[in-house]
Amino acid sequence: MRPSSSRSDDVFSGVLARGRVPEHVSGRAWLQALLDFEAGLARAQARAGLITVDEAAAIEAACQADLYDVAEIGAGAAEIGNPAGAVVKALKAAVADAPVHKGATSQDAMDSAAMLVTKRALGPLLGDLRGAADAAEQLARTHRETPMIGRTLLQQAQPTTFGLKAAGWMVGLDEAADALHNVRLSVQFGGPVGTLAGACPASAPPDVGVAGIEGVRNEPPPVALVRAIARELDLDVPLLPWHTLRGRIGELAGALGVAAGAIGKAALDVVLLAQTEVGEVREGTGGGSTSMPHKHNPVAAIAAIGNAKQAPGLVATLLAAMVQEHERAAGAWHAEWRPLNELLVATGSAASWLRTSLEELEVDAERMRTNLNQPDPDLGAAATLVDRALEHR
Amino acid sequence: MRPSSSRSDDVFSGVLARGRVPEHVSGRAWLQALLDFEAGLARAQARAGLITVDEAAAIEAACQADLYDVAEIGAGAAEIGNPAGAVVKALKAAVADAPVHKGATSQDAMDSAAMLVTKRALGPLLGDLRGAADAAEQLARTHRETPMIGRTLLQQAQPTTFGLKAAGWMVGLDEAADALHNVRLSVQFGGPVGTLAGACPASAPPDVGVAGIEGVRNEPPPVALVRAIARELDLDVPLLPWHTLRGRIGELAGALGVAAGAIGKAALDVVLLAQTEVGEVREGTGGGSTSMPHKHNPVAAIAAIGNAKQAPGLVATLLAAMVQEHERAAGAWHAEWRPLNELLVATGSAASWLRTSLEELEVDAERMRTNLNQPDPDLGAAATLVDRALEHR
Amino acid sequence: MRPSSSRSDDVFSGVLARGRVPEHVSGRAWLQALLDFEAGLARAQARAGLITVDEAAAIEAACQADLYDVAEIGAGAAEIGNPAGAVVKALKAAVADAPVHKGATSQDAMDSAAMLVTKRALGPLLGDLRGAADAAEQLARTHRETPMIGRTLLQQAQPTTFGLKAAGWMVGLDEAADALHNVRLSVQFGGPVGTLAGACPASAPPDVGVAGIEGVRNEPPPVALVRAIARELDLDVPLLPWHTLRGRIGELAGALGVAAGAIGKAALDVVLLAQTEVGEVREGTGGGSTSMPHKHNPVAAIAAIGNAKQAPGLVATLLAAMVQEHERAAGAWHAEWRPLNELLVATGSAASWLRTSLEELEVDAERMRTNLNQPDPDLGAAATLVDRALEHR
Amino acid sequence: MRPSSSRSDDVFSGVLARGRVPEHVSGRAWLQALLDFEAGLARAQARAGLITVDEAAAIEAACQADLYDVAEIGAGAAEIGNPAGAVVKALKAAVADAPVHKGATSQDAMDSAAMLVTKRALGPLLGDLRGAADAAEQLARTHRETPMIGRTLLQQAQPTTFGLKAAGWMVGLDEAADALHNVRLSVQFGGPVGTLAGACPASAPPDVGVAGIEGVRNEPPPVALVRAIARELDLDVPLLPWHTLRGRIGELAGALGVAAGAIGKAALDVVLLAQTEVGEVREGTGGGSTSMPHKHNPVAAIAAIGNAKQAPGLVATLLAAMVQEHERAAGAWHAEWRPLNELLVATGSAASWLRTSLEELEVDAERMRTNLNQPDPDLGAAATLVDRALEHR
Repeated sequence: MRPSSSRSDDVFSGVLARGRVPEHVSGRAWLQALLDFEAGLARAQARAGLITVDEAAAIEAACQADLYDVAEIGAGAAEIGNPAGAVVKALKAAVADAPVHKGATSQDAMDSAAMLVTKRALGPLLGDLRGAADAAEQLARTHRETPMIGRTLLQQAQPTTFGLKAAGWMVGLDEAADALHNVRLSVQFGGPVGTLAGACPASAPPDVGVAGIEGVRNEPPPVALVRAIARELDLDVPLLPWHTLRGRIGELAGALGVAAGAIGKAALDVVLLAQTEVGEVREGTGGGSTSMPHKHNPVAAIAAIGNAKQAPGLVATLLAAMVQEHERAAGAWHAEWRPLNELLVATGSAASWLRTSLEELEVDAERMRTNLNQPDPDLGAAATLVDRALEHR
Repeated sequence: MRPSSSRSDDVFSGVLARGRVPEHVSGRAWLQALLDFEAGLARAQARAGLITVDEAAAIEAACQADLYDVAEIGAGAAEIGNPAGAVVKALKAAVADAPVHKGATSQDAMDSAAMLVTKRALGPLLGDLRGAADAAEQLARTHRETPMIGRTLLQQAQPTTFGLKAAGWMVGLDEAADALHNVRLSVQFGGPVGTLAGACPASAPPDVGVAGIEGVRNEPPPVALVRAIARELDLDVPLLPWHTLRGRIGELAGALGVAAGAIGKAALDVVLLAQTEVGEVREGTGGGSTSMPHKHNPVAAIAAIGNAKQAPGLVATLLAAMVQEHERAAGAWHAEWRPLNELLVATGSAASWLRTSLEELEVDAERMRTNLNQPDPDLGAAATLVDRALEHR
Repeated sequence: MRPSSSRSDDVFSGVLARGRVPEHVSGRAWLQALLDFEAGLARAQARAGLITVDEAAAIEAACQADLYDVAEIGAGAAEIGNPAGAVVKALKAAVADAPVHKGATSQDAMDSAAMLVTKRALGPLLGDLRGAADAAEQLARTHRETPMIGRTLLQQAQPTTFGLKAAGWMVGLDEAADALHNVRLSVQFGGPVGTLAGACPASAPPDVGVAGIEGVRNEPPPVALVRAIARELDLDVPLLPWHTLRGRIGELAGALGVAAGAIGKAALDVVLLAQTEVGEVREGTGGGSTSMPHKHNPVAAIAAIGNAKQAPGLVATLLAAMVQEHERAAGAWHAEWRPLNELLVATGSAASWLRTSLEELEVDAERMRTNLNQPDPDLGAAATLVDRALEHR
Repeated sequence: MRPSSSRSDDVFSGVLARGRVPEHVSGRAWLQALLDFEAGLARAQARAGLITVDEAAAIEAACQADLYDVAEIGAGAAEIGNPAGAVVKALKAAVADAPVHKGATSQDAMDSAAMLVTKRALGPLLGDLRGAADAAEQLARTHRETPMIGRTLLQQAQPTTFGLKAAGWMVGLDEAADALHNVRLSVQFGGPVGTLAGACPASAPPDVGVAGIEGVRNEPPPVALVRAIARELDLDVPLLPWHTLRGRIGELAGALGVAAGAIGKAALDVVLLAQTEVGEVREGTGGGSTSMPHKHNPVAAIAAIGNAKQAPGLVATLLAAMVQEHERAAGAWHAEWRPLNELLVATGSAASWLRTSLEELEVDAERMRTNLNQPDPDLGAAATLVDRALEHR
């Protein structure tokens, strides 16, 4: 249970910032993503002939987070109300005359960076979510026919199998992962009010490196430029600049909330099955306590719940923040940054903990049989359902 | 602005229960949905040879909400903690010996009913959402080149077009509608603990009316029965019974929350543009006040916001309720019903109001030009973006 | 377990609208509260010599909800975006020339009505909350020395007493009730923009029936009029009109959320102790299921949790709605009405269920001793703590 | 507008971690608070004769955060699921044989530390909240009779004064500050399951340094020990150990949510009044943008809104987390830490920004008069209300 975290000034990191998401939403990671936008923009503009290749190269060379001080950028964010301004200022100072941030507005940088940060954070997050589902699959396979008592309203009800329970966890996690995998991660580029005015001359060089993309040959130059930037950053091309069309953030939030819910469900089952009086599972790496070292607490599942429970409120914040004014919001946009970070960390941390819990779960089939206290239940349909779920993967 | 509502004991219905969603989430609508499940179950079981056609017909004949008293069912819900028990009891009394609710558990009825209620409510909700998007499209077409000042952080910034603003509303609404249209609405049938035990003999008549569905010819009988019920109710077939796998509810909640956000964004823009000092739009049917009859308030947009703002908290409740115990939750499941209803009503009501607002919106292009206060801005790229969005519909 | 509800078109009423709160937040109750405001305003204005006593009497006589159609008022609410306009219109039609709603704005009526509705709903809500605390007290007294195993992280830990656990429930409920009892329920009267302009001549008759109230003898006439209205309605006098100063709503929401949390805590303990494998308590009136009549589910505690879990999201909505524009909000105010109603109902229903659960709780001290599995733990300090909590009531 | 923050790896610190709250909720601050608990416990135990004065001195000497590595403690938190275990382990290693953490459980340390952290964070938070109210007071005094148009539903309505608007902000902020000031900040000490078993012998030395406190002379020794610890830490004495009675956290959350709402209301008014088309106020230190340096954005008010909007979701998380199992929660407790920190930071940051906004607000009384466009409105009652609010401070 080796925690990893980039949060050095955080006594909760081991519990609430587990896995590899935190390093991708750190201040340094945001700074790099902001710089990546500026570099990608410059490269695309160079391809389009809007700036020179040398200028783009000079800009790109300066787009390394290590060249700047995160704390200074953070402090400078106060000036215009977001960190992009401070980044652009520092970058301009670094490259002298090269045309940095040309045609862009600070929100172009911020929103694109948010998408890059999300994309990078979703990597390990999905890895742990799938990893937890893999562990559930293994449990489902192993215990395809292990009978146990089913419990409804926390009362013993009728027989089921542990395999079916584990298959349910697997399906819940897989479906959540699929939805997360499909969220739209789109570049943002629209200029000050999202019109793309001045982004490039209407009679811009037609070849902006997109000639090979089917169906976009006759695309107007400004849109072609957006596509070129998106390609540089490996992000989607939006139908319109989405400065105040925050569906993407809302969908992402919802998908993370669903993932946290699926994680919480499995973890709660583990905690309940691990109760002293039930005793049907036990975490391989349980923890003690400062006062009762003899106890064997299902720390991983508990921590998974503790993280997952933070998600719904953060989702609500992000959904409420969708109601944004005109061409840039006066506060609702700013209200997204921290909750998005925290939602990624909480969900990722929950996934990491659940994966550990399920990978090391010790199942006491004998105790299950004792608690079931029924001879030979017919569980053929349950096994059929398990097979169905396993085949579907 | 003729409100419609099935809520007779509600002084807020005209504002907070607009459109046709409320009638589909009423007590009577839920009762009918619960009965529809029982009727569909009986028909499917008859097709599978598990009950007789006459028995199914007798059950179906009794599955009319008008035959029962909603208030009595509501009161009876207290007995087992959900209304399905009271419905089954009443239905059994009505059909004497016919095998009502055979092999089902009350949550099978409740969850399937929730899906039916949702499906029926989404009809008018999506109708109003698309209607609002249509109205936005019309505004975008008409004002494709109408210049206005773009505003960021509520300060005048650079020129844009009203067409691009309206196109943005359209895209936000369309994307939300698409996502809502795609939520999974699946039947629930698993029996007491979701194992399908006893649902039908393993050696059941193989033909349960599904022979024609490709790829399911060799489906095990219990799964085939689920498919048959789903077909009767026009719902999807889930991979597993989802009694405590609440991803569907979470996804639905998220999609409704995003829709509410997209509505709120457009409505807020209308309210801001209608400000006395801005005066760029005016609702065709504005309202006065009890104390200032001369005022022209954008009541429709305001009411749309008032409804939309209720969504995020309800989404949070539904996401938090995903963490459910074992094979049936002791409270978290019960916590879904009201918020789901309210979320459908609030979002539907918001959509209905926004549609009215946009359909009757009077645009003062002259005032826009005056506020813009700039000669001949180049807005070619903005028009291109509008075209792109319109072509995409 | 006899549920009561005014919600006739609601299949969930028995579970989610228990107790006597629903009748106080019904459409009819809101209508009466709106009329009570108009009557109280008229009486106060008559005392102040601003209208005649006969006029006030005529108005008061017409302020009976039974004289009007709630559904019609509800539909009429769409016109100006709130029901007060429709009420005033109907009332004016009923009393011909009497000066109805004089100097008031619709929000004065709505906000004062919200306070009256809240006050009336808090009566039974606090009754059930205190009733649940009483039941907990009784359990604490009876089981002051009943040993049981304490459980941390759902693992058996060290001995405690059931008396201490019940005393904890009691203290949590009492503290929540105290806080709810102390929320500010203030009249709203400020006129169109909250200035009290035209409420009464600056040289109004000084005696508006407040001469006897200490410290307000030299109060300016407009403030004295507010005090007189407050006295008629038995509400507090605010420092300023609070049309967009929504601290009262936020505090009320927070206090209801805390009450729901305290209820949920006790109910969760009951559900966990009632687990088949634990078996330390049993609800006196447990419910079966449609498929497993032999089960004994702790329906009351489960329903309490199901209601309590709806609170946090509603609180978030009400807190988010505090951010209101200028002198009347364009949507955030409208977003309060339904969530406030639902929060009162959910919390009241939860309190009612918990009271039933605790009042009829059967405690199996023998099973507790068996599960404890320890000879003679020293629980003197625990008993001391129970005494301390009991003495404090 | 010089931001200060202890968050060095945070590009948002200048916007979202303003003021002096962040340094009080940092990892280092939590570590110190955890150590302060251990030191206070030791001192109190020494006073009670339970450990020696030398032992207490040795422990206290080692309770300096600088002696430990925050990141290491954070990583170590994973072992038992909270950082207290890691702190105790490190402390024990530092003091060799001294009786560290005697009779305490890790939650005693964590909850007491949470209260200390909160207390320390509330200092600057209340300072900025009161500071903002002071600035509002100054505006109310200066503009007691400055006429302006009142706006309802964002439409011009009837005249009011800027003084009354500012007085409203003041009252909202003051009331929120009062409520926050009054939240209960109580020590936690109960031992493993909250029974105080073994905390001290029943026949412990009666004098634990509390003899002088009226009314507690005959207090049982365990309670007296709690009182002594509370005194050392300057925290309240709870009626019972509150390990799973989370009313305190819920109340604190609610009060912070109300404060954020009051801040957001004032900030929104500033942003709306600062609109180009309204132009009635202007922030003294407005910010430009990366693309439009000529703009004068009300950055402080916008940032205040951006921070305030994060509160409601966090409050919902903390309220939902009140539902905790038995004697220690399996996840809900862990779900409190981060949201509590973030709620303190967001509210404090919002308060700091609003203070700056109001302290430097430039009011354009001439523009107000122009927008009002009415000769000599009678605003005597408004001035009376302003006076009433000012006198009340």
